[in-house]
Amino acid sequence: MRVTEGGGVHRVVIVGAGFGGLFAAKFLRRAPVQATLVDRTNHHVFQPLLYHVATGILSSGEIAPATRDVLHRHANVEVQLGEVTGFDLDARQVMVTRPGGREVKLPYDSLIVAAGVGGSYFGHDEFEQWAPGMKTLSDALAQRGRIFGAFELAELEEDPEARKALLTFAVVGGGPTGVEIAGQIAELSRRALKGNFRNFDPKSVRVVLFDGGKEILANFGDKLSGKATSELEQTGVEIHTESIVTSVDADGVEVKGPDGEITRYAARTTIWAAGVQASPLAKLLAEASGAETDRAGRIKVLPDCSLPGHPEIFAVGDMMNLNDLPGVAEVAMQTGIHAARIIKKRVESGADSTPFKYRDLGSMAAVSRRRAIVSFHGLRVSGWLGWIMWMFVHLAFMTGFKNRFTAGLHWMMAFGGRGRPQRAIVGDEIGDA
Amino acid sequence: MRVTEGGGVHRVVIVGAGFGGLFAAKFLRRAPVQATLVDRTNHHVFQPLLYHVATGILSSGEIAPATRDVLHRHANVEVQLGEVTGFDLDARQVMVTRPGGREVKLPYDSLIVAAGVGGSYFGHDEFEQWAPGMKTLSDALAQRGRIFGAFELAELEEDPEARKALLTFAVVGGGPTGVEIAGQIAELSRRALKGNFRNFDPKSVRVVLFDGGKEILANFGDKLSGKATSELEQTGVEIHTESIVTSVDADGVEVKGPDGEITRYAARTTIWAAGVQASPLAKLLAEASGAETDRAGRIKVLPDCSLPGHPEIFAVGDMMNLNDLPGVAEVAMQTGIHAARIIKKRVESGADSTPFKYRDLGSMAAVSRRRAIVSFHGLRVSGWLGWIMWMFVHLAFMTGFKNRFTAGLHWMMAFGGRGRPQRAIVGDEIGDA
Repeated sequence: MRVTEGGGVHRVVIVGAGFGGLFAAKFLRRAPVQATLVDRTNHHVFQPLLYHVATGILSSGEIAPATRDVLHRHANVEVQLGEVTGFDLDARQVMVTRPGGREVKLPYDSLIVAAGVGGSYFGHDEFEQWAPGMKTLSDALAQRGRIFGAFELAELEEDPEARKALLTFAVVGGGPTGVEIAGQIAELSRRALKGNFRNFDPKSVRVVLFDGGKEILANFGDKLSGKATSELEQTGVEIHTESIVTSVDADGVEVKGPDGEITRYAARTTIWAAGVQASPLAKLLAEASGAETDRAGRIKVLPDCSLPGHPEIFAVGDMMNLNDLPGVAEVAMQTGIHAARIIKKRVESGADSTPFKYRDLGSMAAVSRRRAIVSFHGLRVSGWLGWIMWMFVHLAFMTGFKNRFTAGLHWMMAFGGRGRPQRAIVGDEIGDA
Repeated sequence: MRVTEGGGVHRVVIVGAGFGGLFAAKFLRRAPVQATLVDRTNHHVFQPLLYHVATGILSSGEIAPATRDVLHRHANVEVQLGEVTGFDLDARQVMVTRPGGREVKLPYDSLIVAAGVGGSYFGHDEFEQWAPGMKTLSDALAQRGRIFGAFELAELEEDPEARKALLTFAVVGGGPTGVEIAGQIAELSRRALKGNFRNFDPKSVRVVLFDGGKEILANFGDKLSGKATSELEQTGVEIHTESIVTSVDADGVEVKGPDGEITRYAARTTIWAAGVQASPLAKLLAEASGAETDRAGRIKVLPDCSLPGHPEIFAVGDMMNLNDLPGVAEVAMQTGIHAARIIKKRVESGADSTPFKYRDLGSMAAVSRRRAIVSFHGLRVSGWLGWIMWMFVHLAFMTGFKNRFTAGLHWMMAFGGRGRPQRAIVGDEIGDA
């Protein structure tokens, strides 16, 4: 079926195949609508595990199934590759540039925008060149090349200082992403790369984690944050809190510490995991609808996730701000489903919309090999029990039985043994910096 | 340990981490030598399965383990990233450009060059842009993007003729590589993509295979070639023998048939699997040593795989010509090991070199799902029994137990079910053509 203009079927356009968009599309399977999901890539990404792709544990397919394959039984959902460039709220059309440059307009009766966020450099966009983030599969594969490439270059380097800089990894941001990637780089160097090099001991690798706040993983509370800190330090990560990165270049970072003094760290690989900035589509939507945006550019939605004056338009997931809910997968899934449910009920029976209620399923972060912290309704778990919970929850939320199975297998190899099967570097990441 | 000039230890430099180079390095583990393996990438590639990466069955890590991890227990082997640009046979040095551009010279006492082959366009290098081949992991990932990207574009295309061209795949060359990729694209469209598209039936895909000879897989003999032809046709591949591709552009190929007439096939995706050309290093070596090269640029070696007048230099694998042995993995492995063995014996006891004897382990090609042909010392097997043999042999020769295990699993998914887990397109392959 094509989405046809003026047809009798209610047309839903969904922008973005992340958690918000995908779960909205899935929910609409049994709704009397014709849905079109538009995304820039052909795959859904399980973002919380991008760092496993970057550190060689998982393959791209395991965390990034083809969106149209996930939805292949959803006969009323069409998946289209394209980049959304704008909206005409009066004409109810989404402007899309397709691969090859052709511009089309997709008409909608209801619209769900779930375009997510990118990294924020707090006004220092020039840092990005030296300290890229990790929001897409491309990003993660590029980080894989940078991380394993740094080890390759270190093996060739004869100058001890230069080699030390190649074996120093700076991670900016002490939230879950920063903690998890720092922990995995440390694990990698201490276990998986054993015996791989002739000219240095991979154990000499230095992983330095910077956070501006008083503690890492502050959202988890003092106790878990303290646990995570000590476990991460045992793994070999050097943690600097109350430390603001003031400069990044090819050779390292400059950091303003708690005492106000600026220290330079020579590090040839810097990874940015601090701060997010909503997709530019949030601003476009806000301007067109009169909605407000917050400091991170996220659009302030009404309690039902719709836009002021536009009950037919919903913004969901990371790109929206509703009661300052955190930018996590759970919020994206639940708001995506919520918007889809309102549309379904409205089309079926003309029912009124209802406010979104967040069911907090807790939060978790894997700190190191077989160690994670979990916060769930006052319950606080850490250590290996936390890690078991982390593993089950991530397997449960992965898309596709087969991916769950092989990912479980690869985790056994990586965390039970020393396997990092996905280390092939493709592209030109090596020697760029 | 570093390879140091003038040191007492016999220094071996190995160029290339393909089957020839890797097996030579492995063999040297217990030899009283210090070896350095140089390659442009950080991984060994199991080339016979590149088409499984291109068609979404296997991940890159499964066929491309990190070379230094394969050799991590070989304490006397050092793996270095770098591009070999030349040789100084008098000074016994290899010229290497390292990532970042630094040029170094690696001294050797013995040299094994195993730089392989690239695709040959028989003087029509302009075809490559529209009909790339598949020799490296990068190539295979790019083909993955082209194949799955063509389906994405077809879903968006409204003009029936243009869509037909997007759903037509031309494969040039009826050897194992061409047959295997053609068979897998046909399988893919008939099974794995079922239910994935709304605007066309993936079964309408046309896969056209061209070969200049009288039959495909001619090396396997008439009987097996006939079997393969009928099985391939059942899978949905259209075979044109005695057909020479005379032109390739963005929109299709022109083919001169057995009757001398030229027919145009509208195909937006063309894959080149015809003919090989030895690495340019073969020519450099030949010029420096006075050896001859054949029409494919392969260096003609002495019976022990060494170069005339240079008993310390060996050329092995696809880039050498010895008794017109075929360019297959088995020849590369065996010649690599042969060269390493000569070096080991020479260093240990001053033993003379011995001529290379090829143990022909037969050849095989997977024609379609659960169908392969096998030729082994007069034994000719086809159908599902051939496929079982194909699977066992490929699992046996894969590098690393874990890769064998997960590849076996993914084959169960792909050939038992309809799983193509690796479909994520990364990079800019879509909409390029």
